[in-house]
Formats: sequence, structure tokens, C-alpha cells
Amino acid sequence: MKKIVLFGEALLRLQAPSFKRIVQAPSFEAFFGGSEANSAVALAQMGANASYVTKLPKNEIGQACVNEIRKWGVDTRDIVMGDGRMGIYFTEKGASQRPAQILYDREGSVFANATPVDFDFNKIFDDTSWFHISGITPALSDNLAQVSLEAVKIAKSKGIKVSCDFNYRSKLWNLDKAKRVLSELVNGIDVLIINENQAKEVFCIDEEDYRKFASILAERMNVKTVVLTKRRTVSGEVHRFSAMIWNAESFYSSREYSIFLIDKIGGGDAFSAALIYALVNNKDLQYAIDFAAASACYKHSVEGDMAVANVAELENLMNSDGSGRFVR
Amino acid sequence: MKKIVLFGEALLRLQAPSFKRIVQAPSFEAFFGGSEANSAVALAQMGANASYVTKLPKNEIGQACVNEIRKWGVDTRDIVMGDGRMGIYFTEKGASQRPAQILYDREGSVFANATPVDFDFNKIFDDTSWFHISGITPALSDNLAQVSLEAVKIAKSKGIKVSCDFNYRSKLWNLDKAKRVLSELVNGIDVLIINENQAKEVFCIDEEDYRKFASILAERMNVKTVVLTKRRTVSGEVHRFSAMIWNAESFYSSREYSIFLIDKIGGGDAFSAALIYALVNNKDLQYAIDFAAASACYKHSVEGDMAVANVAELENLMNSDGSGRFVR
Amino acid sequence: MKKIVLFGEALLRLQAPSFKRIVQAPSFEAFFGGSEANSAVALAQMGANASYVTKLPKNEIGQACVNEIRKWGVDTRDIVMGDGRMGIYFTEKGASQRPAQILYDREGSVFANATPVDFDFNKIFDDTSWFHISGITPALSDNLAQVSLEAVKIAKSKGIKVSCDFNYRSKLWNLDKAKRVLSELVNGIDVLIINENQAKEVFCIDEEDYRKFASILAERMNVKTVVLTKRRTVSGEVHRFSAMIWNAESFYSSREYSIFLIDKIGGGDAFSAALIYALVNNKDLQYAIDFAAASACYKHSVEGDMAVANVAELENLMNSDGSGRFVR
Amino acid sequence: MKKIVLFGEALLRLQAPSFKRIVQAPSFEAFFGGSEANSAVALAQMGANASYVTKLPKNEIGQACVNEIRKWGVDTRDIVMGDGRMGIYFTEKGASQRPAQILYDREGSVFANATPVDFDFNKIFDDTSWFHISGITPALSDNLAQVSLEAVKIAKSKGIKVSCDFNYRSKLWNLDKAKRVLSELVNGIDVLIINENQAKEVFCIDEEDYRKFASILAERMNVKTVVLTKRRTVSGEVHRFSAMIWNAESFYSSREYSIFLIDKIGGGDAFSAALIYALVNNKDLQYAIDFAAASACYKHSVEGDMAVANVAELENLMNSDGSGRFVR
Amino acid sequence: MKKIVLFGEALLRLQAPSFKRIVQAPSFEAFFGGSEANSAVALAQMGANASYVTKLPKNEIGQACVNEIRKWGVDTRDIVMGDGRMGIYFTEKGASQRPAQILYDREGSVFANATPVDFDFNKIFDDTSWFHISGITPALSDNLAQVSLEAVKIAKSKGIKVSCDFNYRSKLWNLDKAKRVLSELVNGIDVLIINENQAKEVFCIDEEDYRKFASILAERMNVKTVVLTKRRTVSGEVHRFSAMIWNAESFYSSREYSIFLIDKIGGGDAFSAALIYALVNNKDLQYAIDFAAASACYKHSVEGDMAVANVAELENLMNSDGSGRFVR
Amino acid sequence: MKKIVLFGEALLRLQAPSFKRIVQAPSFEAFFGGSEANSAVALAQMGANASYVTKLPKNEIGQACVNEIRKWGVDTRDIVMGDGRMGIYFTEKGASQRPAQILYDREGSVFANATPVDFDFNKIFDDTSWFHISGITPALSDNLAQVSLEAVKIAKSKGIKVSCDFNYRSKLWNLDKAKRVLSELVNGIDVLIINENQAKEVFCIDEEDYRKFASILAERMNVKTVVLTKRRTVSGEVHRFSAMIWNAESFYSSREYSIFLIDKIGGGDAFSAALIYALVNNKDLQYAIDFAAASACYKHSVEGDMAVANVAELENLMNSDGSGRFVR
Repeated sequence: MKKIVLFGEALLRLQAPSFKRIVQAPSFEAFFGGSEANSAVALAQMGANASYVTKLPKNEIGQACVNEIRKWGVDTRDIVMGDGRMGIYFTEKGASQRPAQILYDREGSVFANATPVDFDFNKIFDDTSWFHISGITPALSDNLAQVSLEAVKIAKSKGIKVSCDFNYRSKLWNLDKAKRVLSELVNGIDVLIINENQAKEVFCIDEEDYRKFASILAERMNVKTVVLTKRRTVSGEVHRFSAMIWNAESFYSSREYSIFLIDKIGGGDAFSAALIYALVNNKDLQYAIDFAAASACYKHSVEGDMAVANVAELENLMNSDGSGRFVR
Repeated sequence: MKKIVLFGEALLRLQAPSFKRIVQAPSFEAFFGGSEANSAVALAQMGANASYVTKLPKNEIGQACVNEIRKWGVDTRDIVMGDGRMGIYFTEKGASQRPAQILYDREGSVFANATPVDFDFNKIFDDTSWFHISGITPALSDNLAQVSLEAVKIAKSKGIKVSCDFNYRSKLWNLDKAKRVLSELVNGIDVLIINENQAKEVFCIDEEDYRKFASILAERMNVKTVVLTKRRTVSGEVHRFSAMIWNAESFYSSREYSIFLIDKIGGGDAFSAALIYALVNNKDLQYAIDFAAASACYKHSVEGDMAVANVAELENLMNSDGSGRFVR
Repeated sequence: MKKIVLFGEALLRLQAPSFKRIVQAPSFEAFFGGSEANSAVALAQMGANASYVTKLPKNEIGQACVNEIRKWGVDTRDIVMGDGRMGIYFTEKGASQRPAQILYDREGSVFANATPVDFDFNKIFDDTSWFHISGITPALSDNLAQVSLEAVKIAKSKGIKVSCDFNYRSKLWNLDKAKRVLSELVNGIDVLIINENQAKEVFCIDEEDYRKFASILAERMNVKTVVLTKRRTVSGEVHRFSAMIWNAESFYSSREYSIFLIDKIGGGDAFSAALIYALVNNKDLQYAIDFAAASACYKHSVEGDMAVANVAELENLMNSDGSGRFVR
Repeated sequence: MKKIVLFGEALLRLQAPSFKRIVQAPSFEAFFGGSEANSAVALAQMGANASYVTKLPKNEIGQACVNEIRKWGVDTRDIVMGDGRMGIYFTEKGASQRPAQILYDREGSVFANATPVDFDFNKIFDDTSWFHISGITPALSDNLAQVSLEAVKIAKSKGIKVSCDFNYRSKLWNLDKAKRVLSELVNGIDVLIINENQAKEVFCIDEEDYRKFASILAERMNVKTVVLTKRRTVSGEVHRFSAMIWNAESFYSSREYSIFLIDKIGGGDAFSAALIYALVNNKDLQYAIDFAAASACYKHSVEGDMAVANVAELENLMNSDGSGRFVR
Repeated sequence: MKKIVLFGEALLRLQAPSFKRIVQAPSFEAFFGGSEANSAVALAQMGANASYVTKLPKNEIGQACVNEIRKWGVDTRDIVMGDGRMGIYFTEKGASQRPAQILYDREGSVFANATPVDFDFNKIFDDTSWFHISGITPALSDNLAQVSLEAVKIAKSKGIKVSCDFNYRSKLWNLDKAKRVLSELVNGIDVLIINENQAKEVFCIDEEDYRKFASILAERMNVKTVVLTKRRTVSGEVHRFSAMIWNAESFYSSREYSIFLIDKIGGGDAFSAALIYALVNNKDLQYAIDFAAASACYKHSVEGDMAVANVAELENLMNSDGSGRFVR
Repeated sequence: MKKIVLFGEALLRLQAPSFKRIVQAPSFEAFFGGSEANSAVALAQMGANASYVTKLPKNEIGQACVNEIRKWGVDTRDIVMGDGRMGIYFTEKGASQRPAQILYDREGSVFANATPVDFDFNKIFDDTSWFHISGITPALSDNLAQVSLEAVKIAKSKGIKVSCDFNYRSKLWNLDKAKRVLSELVNGIDVLIINENQAKEVFCIDEEDYRKFASILAERMNVKTVVLTKRRTVSGEVHRFSAMIWNAESFYSSREYSIFLIDKIGGGDAFSAALIYALVNNKDLQYAIDFAAASACYKHSVEGDMAVANVAELENLMNSDGSGRFVR
């Protein structure tokens, strides 16, 4: 089974217990996560051969992160360890009208300070069929932007399929730079995954027909396949989620899920993972978008950044009416 | 006050904390439960003289189970202790579209291996007015099937009323054997409690008129009173529950409750307990079915297998509009 | 910045963990709270100069209470410490059809036994712009009724604005006495805050037009401004909340919030605090009632008795569509 | 098996978690305990028929206390429930040079307010072989002093053996009153258990020969058997404990244990229980004092007020070299 | 780096929290462990290429066990999953004179029921330099005795070094059978690790000179190297530990450690791992025995079955005076 | 009461639960601490008017730190809030031979990046009698070195007494720079507190007579009073601690305490606080050194960085034999 390689930052997440606010917290539950790490774990739960590449601090916290990721069956042999600190973020769960909070302390992390010499993608891409990256990675530093572009170039040169989760983060860089760098990153790749609202905001597209919307994006970004995700906030604890997939020949939509939130973080990463899984395994596009939407939905019910769900569980959800029953 | 005797297996339930999956759990909350044990505890909370009969391992885990049951005021003097293991089951709570999970490790338990000599029902039934059993007990082993049939026979011979919660479990035995043994068990008893869907599945009855449905069951099973329970899954965290009672003269339905789930396990056992309580205390059938439905509903809001609710709390719910308010 | 003085009892709240009932609890989470203490903390989070006055036991529990209150930036220098016990109350969260429970053990507390010599309001009211009290304080003892009346009198004599949260508690005194004492307490003050149902129950007013309703109250109680709060119980976990403000010239209503409950206790106190904050800062009445309603709503999502929310968070909620979104 | 009756107050103990001080505690672990309740539970673990008599509040906290006590197999049928509050005490564990702390909030409890009509000892003493009481009970109120004296009188009149754990508490009453009441209580009973230091302090006896010491006490108090306990504080976490038993014919000493403290509370109660168990079962005095000392020692390693140890475990300790080993 | 293969059972350990007894536990902390699994994890922490072979249930509990083991960097690719149950054991920590308790529920586990066809050692031993097994594995079933003997035979035929931790467990089989099977298992292997007391008990050797003692064992068992471990119980919380290594040419002893116990389980497994690590890396025998003793000592301070310590930490301890200091 | 001003960094401490290693931790207990913050809290518990000056991030974590410090009664009005991150450190408790671990992530903190304009010491020192600083503060950045020197200068110019806890940290700067800067900082101040070993290491003094040792230090550093602390590591959980005070006229030593460690962090800060308290209150030097040593000893038994002990508790310890007893 060929490798699926994912490249990005992993962070230590410190979450206030139960529904306490950060300012009230007597302790923090510790999770590790990060967009590509989460996708890697989700892929491994599906039985895929996922390899996660990052740089982590050579200390107990960095080691704990490696341990957590390999615990879920991800190949961590290409993770680089070095001097520096782990990026951290603090979270509090939202409830009712109080929104969830994220407080980042990720600046100057060992990964943000990584340089091209840290990662030998020619070697990393041995025996690889797919490469996935998110738009967060190039946002972290100019070095990482360069590394990201280089990695995609090498992947393409080796005939490896490339997907990108657009994931523009306004707190990390300004819109103009993001637009420029991400456009270069995405240019010519196979699959672009992008949130509908973000696409509208970044590219100033005002188009209600999603099929047209996707085709405009595909043309502008020069990608073969465009995947749109759509989230609606009903209330603090209820969201709606659906997705669409477009290529030159066809366009498919998933069911819309109404989700009671347990942990929203990582929902998009579980989506990307399932989409890649389906495409790598040559499922048809309707299956792919349904499986990815089910994965995103399911993740919202799992604590922590990482999706813990196997293919059978996701197919059950995908083929069910969406409610949970005991089996005894 | 005469005894109500209940006979069946008690298990150790190990539940993953908060909304964690079993595979994520760093610890497990420990509850004890089992269909008849749960009903016994519920009866004791109502002030009834409930006596629970089972066989438990003669070790710390078995003793902890005795302690937990007598803590709630149940008479545990007829529990037998012997060599062997306690049946265990692992649970994870469901949420949103992720269903709750139960993983059984109950094979070869000290109770499943019990033999007729372990229980002297002639002595156990001293000063007893009611005997309750579920369809799980005879499913556990041929010995227990024999013990169950014998116990019902002795009860009837002493003029003790007998009720049975049908509770067919497909994971424990096959349909044909279950149908044959349970039909013999139930034949001639006073009250049969059965879930509507199960009744349809086991007896292949396709009848939408519940009154007729019940009368067909009563005739076929040769029981005086048939109680149907009805559960609808709205979503992972919301269920609807109602119930009906039938005898040759009359037919009554309860209100339908929409329930936000805290812990679903034991809802049916709380129902049986309340029904028995009402019948033993000569309440009319409308009260009986309303009280039983309120008890089932209330249990869903209580953590653990065992219903902790007194008569006043259940009557309050039964007579209220069903929403919760502070009293201060 | 002039002081806002609040006077009343603080209690130790012992809450059963998660959704356990009191009778099941292996431990209790410890919070401190009390109507005026909660309002004081909420005011301090808004940046106000809140001074809380009470009497506490001169022991570790009393000191822990002082610590908790000053932790949130409240001025605790006028708290009196003396021999006696801390009032306690036990709580269990409600869920679905099971109502939340409060079990009081507050009789004979050091505060209930306080006497007029304990509090020198002439000194306490130095540099003070506002005085707030609830109807719970005079209910605790005849001494406290006397102290309360005296405090209001001194406040008025110094030109300090006075507000009162009516808060009639049937478990603490009988209706007749409450009506008599509270009417005297409220007579001539600036702002009366009262729950709609309580107003109807205590004063036997049957008037559906809230403007008229408020004007009747204002006249009968001789207060300048009347604020009505309105709570509807949709289910055990969902309430609706809105409020209205009336004075001789005008009448404004807030939006109605549908609230998913995390911790209901202290919602009214957060309301009073925000109202006082708005009035002290000369906001217009529409802002005042909207800000107060947002504060009450927000509190329901915060664990513990005390509202932890700043002005920006409350204005965000007040100006939003009321659902919670991540900002990253 | 005849009953052993124990009479005294049960309290709710709220313990700060791990080694936190009370003033730091974010939650409290909840235990129930009380000198005679603890002894009753210890006796039940040994297989004795222990019946505990007290008065508890008729609410969830009182019921939780009954549940905890009957959980351990104690007969709770003679416990009286009534209006009032449960006595409470807060504890923090000591460590190193920081002593453990106890903060009492037991005044005005439902038990302290109990009256002679609450307890019908003529009925309670049906089929009873032994009655045990501690010196705490008469200290709680004049009513309870009267009830205690009356109970002992009735016991003696029925030929029931009586033991008393002297347990003078300087925080509850003054020395003169204690001396007078306790002397009357103890006069003519069978077994007096008293701590060496307390005996010296209360009775101003300065005698280093323990045999003589005991005989002086026996004569002065008019009791048949005197049991002296001896505790030495080596450090905050290490104590030494031993005991001696005296009657007119003989005098025996136990081994001295060096104990690493887990929970000191209830050590004396476990001692009394084991002593009574040995005497009721006609063990010789050497066994009795060894068994009692082992029970006290063992209790120090068990969390909570109540000793959880069976006869085999205590005899193992009594016959061992006193260190703990795995058996696998 | 060649593989070190370890073969044996992994169990789910459920530990009562803090110092609670099993019968008091409201929850259980979950660890996975087993003699060879523990050694494998310890080896991986030292940087060795450890491969663990076992059979686990194909369910969430079995998967959680795989996850835990690979989390620590052990190669789990040769673990077999199948139908059946996971062996379980319950533990309570000891304290002072109360010994720790272990309650096994491991009968009929999927591993105990494994058959020769489950494990293809010819393939498993690819690229392997060392094979380690304990005396527990052949004790679990006749099938496993056969598999164990066969595995050792294959290992020897491939020139792989073999070590065995004798680990006779009287609860699993009788002495005669154990002696016969283990003698056959150990015959001709490279390294035998055995506890001094066990050696004396099983082989009835009464010899105080450890050098002679070891040589007798070596001759009788036909092994090249004999390692003796020596444990002395000072008290429930303090043990002393040392070890000796013997071969035909030389004999070395380690320092004796006085250990304050945090978690004793797995101490011997950490010892074996460190010994193998030293021997595989061609360290001299004095280093080997010192490193192994340090590893055993260190493990006693780590919670859980598995030793978490790297080579630098163990060498620090080995070269230090044995007390712990902050480095800041 | 005049202010005692303390200036230094506060950090968020994240501690692995119970005895888990950082790499095993599923959550972290959150404490705030820092040398001067800890001393400020200790002083406030003694009733002193302590004012703590630092710079914290203007976010929820920074606010939580302010809250924690003012909770204990410290004046926090001169704390500056600004953009940046909070310094963090991770800890694991040591046990037996495994040393405690500290992993710092404090680089680039908002405090380390502070500049002279952030602190207006002319204003801060209003109505101040004492200024305390540690050697950690100037080590954090050149700016802070400058601010520290300037602050001491201003203090001296205003006649404020100055004390310094030498606290050389080799991880923060090199010895030469430290020696140079700290010598300048300490030159001419009133009280220098320094650990014996550190004094020997930094100043290469080899003198066994502590009186001479202190006088050499006093002369070389140009300080009036020198306080030496002495710590001996007996084992991972047992330390010995004592201290000496020297001035031109006299020299006093404290008792040596043997301490069973609960939490070592902050012991030195509690020492400094108590010393300052004694000197500010004009206690004699013997009292001062005894009180300070008792405070250091007591802190080791309290969880968290901050000493929670009042004057009576410390005097009790100082006047006792050093073991802990219940008072009931």
C-alpha cells in the first residue's frame, strides 16, 4: 500500500475542563492536533498508510506528540526533532450563545522556524501516491511557504497526486499575501478543498449556483477537482454541514447533517482525510463526497482534534438516517 | 410488606469518561447493573420490599456489587457467592450521529455457569407477592433456562404473580431457540412487558392497531396482561417514549415523552419496576401505565444503570407538563 | 471611579458532579455564590468598582470565599469576619424531565446572625454612587431586615442610587411578612427588578400589557424605574429569557433568548449587574435592557454562580444573531 | 447471630482533594462517618450483625448517609429520619510538618437536637448482645447526655454488655462537665477504651507502669476491663500505635506498629470494633488486643472514615511481619 | 538495527483510584500491560527495535491495547487480532501494612486460547537478533506451552539469542508442571533471569553464596548466563532491590536500591529489558547488571505497567548517588 | 501599613497529574507562579501589604494570573498588561530515585520583552518600605537587567530597604555575565539571600565555617545582611533544610528540618517572604531566621507554587517539635 504523505504543524491543545472558561480553568486537558496531523490520524483509522511529516521539539512534549500520533497507526518516521518550542493553543468549549474560544500561542515554534534543509522531500516521497497540505503551513513563515511550494513541485514531478485544504487564516497573515502564495501553491494540483464562505471572501466571488461557483474556482486556481464545504451555525451547540464535489464532467452534493457539537475542532481535517481515502481507493465521486461529509459529521461527536472512526462506522452513518442507536 | 423477588444477572459496567470512545478511554467509571438488579433498585427507591437473587463471584468485585445493590435498600440476603468471574460490559456514550456502543465480555460468568442447586426458590419465595424475570436470564445458558422455567413454575404454584420483560437479545441466542424457550417461560404468567418492535420481529405480527396487537400477543402467549413499550429515535441525543397496557377488559396509553438522553441504559428496567409497583399497590391501569412511563422517562436523566427516583418525583413528572424547574 | 456597593449573603455551593444526583455524589464541586456577590463579580468583570459587603466565618471556608470574590477584582475590604458558620447549599443539575435540585443548609449562618453593629454603612458608603440589595437579605433574619432598611435609608440620605432585586423566596419567609418588609425596603428607591411571575404572585396583579403592569408596580411600590424579567421553561435544558424596562417616559423590551442551560444559577444576578452597569454609565434604556438581557443569557453558559463576561463579549452577543462561532 | 448496637452521630465529611488545603480546594470528596458509624461498618466487614442507631435529616444528604452505611452491610432499620441539618466537617490531609486540619460545622445538627422520644431503646435492644457508645455522643447536647445514660441503663438491665470509647473532645464541652457526665456513663460498664494521653489529661494520673495505670482507672471508673491505646507522632506521615488490655486477672500488650498514614480518621473506631468482635466471639485477651491493634493499624491505610477489612486480612496482618507484599 | 522479539500476553489493568480499595472504587484507571509487552516498551524507550507478538481481541479494547503499545514506539505489526476476550486484572495499591492486591480475570482470554497456527515464528524471526519470553506464557495453556517451546526452538535454529524471565506463578499452574515445562523451555538458552526466592522455592536450593547458587542453577538448567534478582520488603511502601549476573567466567553485583514505591508492577520487566539492551549492545557485564538494576529501580517510580525511561536517565541514576534533584 | 514591592516574572505552570511523567500526561494541572509572585502571596498570607509588579499578556491567561494573585490578597494594581505571550513551564513530580523535571518554555515572554517604559518605579514605590527582587529577573533580558538595576537604585534613593534572592540560573545566562550583573544589582543592598552551594559555585569560596563564609560574601558583595540557605537531598522524597543569618554583629542558625516533599517549588520564595516579614516587623534575628526556615519547610507540604500559611501556623511549627497532629 503506497504512502499518503501529509505535511504541517502539530500543536499542543490545552482545553479548559467541562464547560469552564479559560480564565476559570484549574487544569487543562491535553490533546495534540494540527490540520494535517488530524487528517493523517483519520486516514490511518481507515486503514490507509498515512505518513505525517513535521518538525517537533526534541523534548518530552515533542515526544509525547510523536507518541500520540503513532498511537493511532500513523507512520512518524519522517518527523524531524530539533531545538525549539512546541506551538500551543488554549481552548474553551462554547455553549448556547457563548462562542467557543481559541487562544493561540504558536509563534516562534520549532516548526515555524524550520528551514528547507529540515525536510528531504525527495526521500520522503518514496513510494508515495498522494500528498496533502493545508493553507496553514505556508502561512507560518516565509521559509515554510518556500518549503511548501517546493514540496508540491517535487510531488508533481514524481506523479504524486496533490490535494490542498485552502484554510486561509486571517490571524496568521494578510489577505493579499495569502492570496498570492496560496494561488501559487494550489496552481495545477489535483484537488482543492475550500470552505464556501472563505472562497467568497478571498476571491470575491458572488455566485449562488454552486456548480458555477466551483467551475470559476477551478479555472481561476487551475485545479482539476474542487470540493466545497458548507457550514451553517444554527446555535452554539447545533451546526449544519454539507459538501459538494465538482470536476469538468460532473458535480455531486452530500446530504446536509444537523450536528449536535461535542468537539468541532478537526471536522474539516476529518473531511479531507475521508475524501482522500475515497479518491485513492477509486471510489466514485458520489461516494467520495458522501463519505467525506459523514466523516466530518462523525468527527464533531468525538473528543479531541483527531477523528477516531473506521470505514464501517462512516459507511453506516452515510447509509443510515443519521440517528444513533444501541446495538446489543 | 411482602417481598417482590427479582432474578437475573448483574454485570460490572465500565464506561468511558465524558464523551470519549472506548478506544480513547484513560479510565472507566464503574457501575453495576443488570435488568433485574436495576428493577430491584428502582422498586426499593419507591419503598417496595425488593429482594434480588443472583450469583456473584466471591471476590472484591462481587462484594462491591452486593454493596452497591444493598446501598439502595434492596434485600440481598438471597444472593449466592461462588467461584468464577463477573460479567463485564464496556460502554461509550453516543452523541449526535455517533451511536452509543456496548461491548460485552459476559461469557462464562459465574451466573451463566450457575446450576439449579445454587437457588432454592422454595425458600426464596417465602412471604413473596410478586416474581419478576427478564428474557435475558434464560438466554445465558441452558442451566439458567431450566432454572428460570422452574422458578416461574414454583412461583405460580405458590400463587405469586409473575411478570416478565421479554427482552430478546439476538447477540445471546438465536431467534428460534429464544422463541421456543421464552414462549414456555411466559406461558400463563400475569404480565408480559414487550417492546413493540421486538414483538413484531419475533412474532412476525404486522398489526398497526395496538389494541389488537396486544390481544393477539396475549392470546398467543397465554398471558393476562400485555404491556407494550414504544421507542422512537429522533436523534443521537433525543428519543421519544410511550407505553400501552392491555387486558381483556381495557386498554390504556401513556403520554409520549420527548427525552434528552443522559443515560439510556436501564430505562426499560425502571419501567418494569414502576409497573410492578403500581400493580402490587392496586393502582388502576391508567395510573400504572402513566407511572411506568414516567419512571422510564426519568431514568434517562439519571447516570448509571439504576433508577434513583422516589414515588413523589415520579408522580410529579406524571402530573406535570414535563419540563424541569428549580424549587427554591 | 465611584464604588457600587452590594450587600447580602454569600454561601458555599456544593454541586454533585456531572449529572449525578445529590444522593449519588462521591464528591462535590465547590463554588461560592450569593445573589449580591454574584452581581458584584459580574460588575467587576465589566470594569466597575464593585464593593461587596457581607459577614463571613473567620475560618478557612470564610477565607476561601473572600479569596474567590477578590480573585475576580471585587473590593472585599468591607467584608466582616466573625465566629459562626457559612451557609451551605447542595445542588444537582437537572436534565430532560428531571428538574434541578437545591437543598439549603443556610440556617443559623454567621450572616443570618449578624447584627446592626457589624456594618457601619456611613463609612461603607464613602465615595459610592450606587447601592444594590436583593430581597433575600431581609428574609434571613429580623436583624438583617432592620440592617437592610437602615442601609437603604442611609444610601438615600447620601444621594446614592438604590436598586433592589425583589427575589421573594417562599422557603425563607411567609408571603405576608415578605410583602410588608419588601414594600418598605423598596419604597422610594430608584430601580426595582422583579420577575414577572413573582410580581403577579406576590401582588396579585393580573395584567397582560407589560407596560401597564410595570406602571402599576411602580406606583404601588413607589419606584422610579421598574424592570421586569420573563422566563419560560421550554424543557429541562432549554429556557427562554427576555426583559423589559419601564419608567414614566418610556418602555423598552429586549430580544427573547432561547438558552441551552449549562448553569442557571446566577442568571438573574448577572442581569442586575449589567443593568446597574449600563445605568451607572448613562447608557440609554434600550441599551440597558439589551445589555442586561445579554448578560443574563450569557451567564447561563458559564459554570458556577458567578458571571465571567466582559463588556465586549456581552455587546458582541447583544449585537449578534445569538449563535456561537469560533474566531481563529 | 445477636445484634451489636452502636449509637452516635454520623457526619458528612468534605475532604480537600489530594494534599490541597481547605482554602485551596476546588472540590471536596464526600465521605460519611462518625465514631460509632465507623465501628458499625468495621464490625459488619468482620461478619458481625451490627446495628447502627442515629438520627439523620430526612433529605437527600441524610438518605445518602443511610445508603453508605447499609452499603457496607450494617443494619440501618433503627435509624430515625427527621427535620434538620446534617452535621458537616471539612478536612485537609496533613503532610510533613503541616498537620492535618479538621473544621467542624456540626452545631445544631438534627442528631444534636434529638430528644429521648426519638429512640426507643427497649425495642432497639431486642436480641442484642452488645452495646457500644463513645464519649462524643453525650457531649453533643444535654438531651443526648440523658439519652446516652438511659440507653446504657437499659442495656445493663437487659444483661447486654456495654463498651465505651472515652473520646473526650475539648472542642465540644469543658473538662469538668465531661468528667462528670462521662464518669456516670462509664460507671459499671464492661469495657472502657481510652487513649493513654487523654486518660492522663482528664484524670490527672501520672503513672508510667501501664498495668497500674489501668487498674487505677478501672477502680476509679468502676469498669471490669480497661483498654489503653497509645499513639506516638513520629512525623506528619508516620505514627506509632499500640494498645494494652487489663482486667483483674491479666494484662496483655499488642505489638507496636509504625504506620505510614493514608487516612488517620477512624483508626480508633476500627480499634473498638475489632475489640468488640473479639470479645463477642470469646477470643482470648491476647488475641483481642492484637486483633484490635491490627484493625487500627490497617484502617490508617484505607481512605475514608470507615474501615474496609475482613477478619482474614486483619489476622494476616496480626500474624505477619507487618509489611505489604503482592500475592499473584 | 535488528529486531528484538518478545512474545506473551497483554492484559487490561483496571486500577482503583488513589489509595482506594477495589471494593471502594467508583472508577478504574485503565492501563495495558503484560510482562513481555512491558519489556518491549522499555526497550523501545531505550531506542531498541522491539517487536511485540501476541494475540488480542478484534474489538475496541484490543485495538486500544495495540495503540498503547505502538504509542511507545514498539513494532506491533506481528500482533494477531481475533475473536475472544481480553484478559483483565484489577489492582489496588497497597500502603503501610496493607498489601497491594491483584485480582485476575484472565481465564479464557483470546491469547490463552491461541493455537500454533496463530503465530508464524519463521516469518516473525526475520532479521531478529534476540528473543525474549517469560515463564507466564507457557503457564496460560497447553497450546501456549507448545507454542513457546516451538518458538524457542526456531529462534535457536536461526542463531537468535534467547532470554527467559522465569516468573513462576503459582496461581496459574502447579509446581510440578511448571518445573517440567519451564526446565524444557529454558534448556540451552542464553540468559535466564530468576528471582532469588523463586529459584530457592522451585528448585529447593539452599545456598547462601550467590555465585555458587548461580552456578548450580546454570548447570541444572543448562544456560550460559544466570541473572539473579533480589527483593526485600522493608515496609508496604519501601522495598530494596539488587541483582547479580553470573557466567562461567565472572560474577558481578549491582548496588542495592532502597525504593519508595509508586507502582511496583513491571519492575522485573524493566529489568529484563535493560539487561537485554545492554547485552545486545555488547556492554560489559558490570554495566549490564548496573543498568538493569537502575531500570528496575526507576520503573518503581513510574505509574502504569510500562517503564518510561531513556538510556540517559538510567545511566544518570546508575552513576548517581540515587537521590532526585531538580535541574533548572 | 506600608507596601512591600516585589518585581519579577510570573509563569503558567502545567503539572502532570499525580506521579505521571510529562510524556504520559493526559492533562495538566494549572498553577501560576514565579519567584517574586510566590513571595508576594506568602507575604499577603502573613497579613503584609504586598504589591506585585510584572508584565502579563493582555488575554485570558494573563487575566487568570492576575486573578490568582489577587485571590490571595496581593495588590495587583501595578501589574502591566500588554501584547505577547505568557511564559510557561511544564513539571513532573519526582519520586524515589526519579528526579522531578522542569521543562521551560519561557523564551520571548511578554515580561522578557518588557522595556523600561513599562514600569514607573518612582510611582510604584509610593508609600513603600521594602523592595524585593530575585536574580532571575535580570537574567531574562538585557532590558530587564537594566530595569532591575534602575529599580534598585530608585528604591535606595527613597530609603526603601532592598533584598535580593540571588537565584543564579545556569539555564538562563552564563556564569560570567550573571556574576557581573548580579554583583552590580546586589551592591549596597540590605539583605542578600543565597543558597550555600550556589554561593560556593559562583564565587569559588571554599570555607566550611558558615560565619566566616557569610562575612566574606558580605564584604565581597557589599551587603549588610547575608542569609545562607542549606538544602541536603536525602532521597527523592526527603530533603533537609536549614538557614543562617549573619550581620556585622551577630550570627544565628535555624533548626534543620527533615522534609517529606509534597511540592518543592516555591520553598525558597516562601523563605524570602517570611524573612522580609520578620525584618519589616522588627523581629529579632533569631526569630527571623527561625520563622523563615519554618516558612520554607511548611511550603514543601503545600501544593502549587504559592505558600498558603499564616503567621500562627508558622509560629506553631517554629515552636513545635515538627510533627503534625490533628486538633479536634
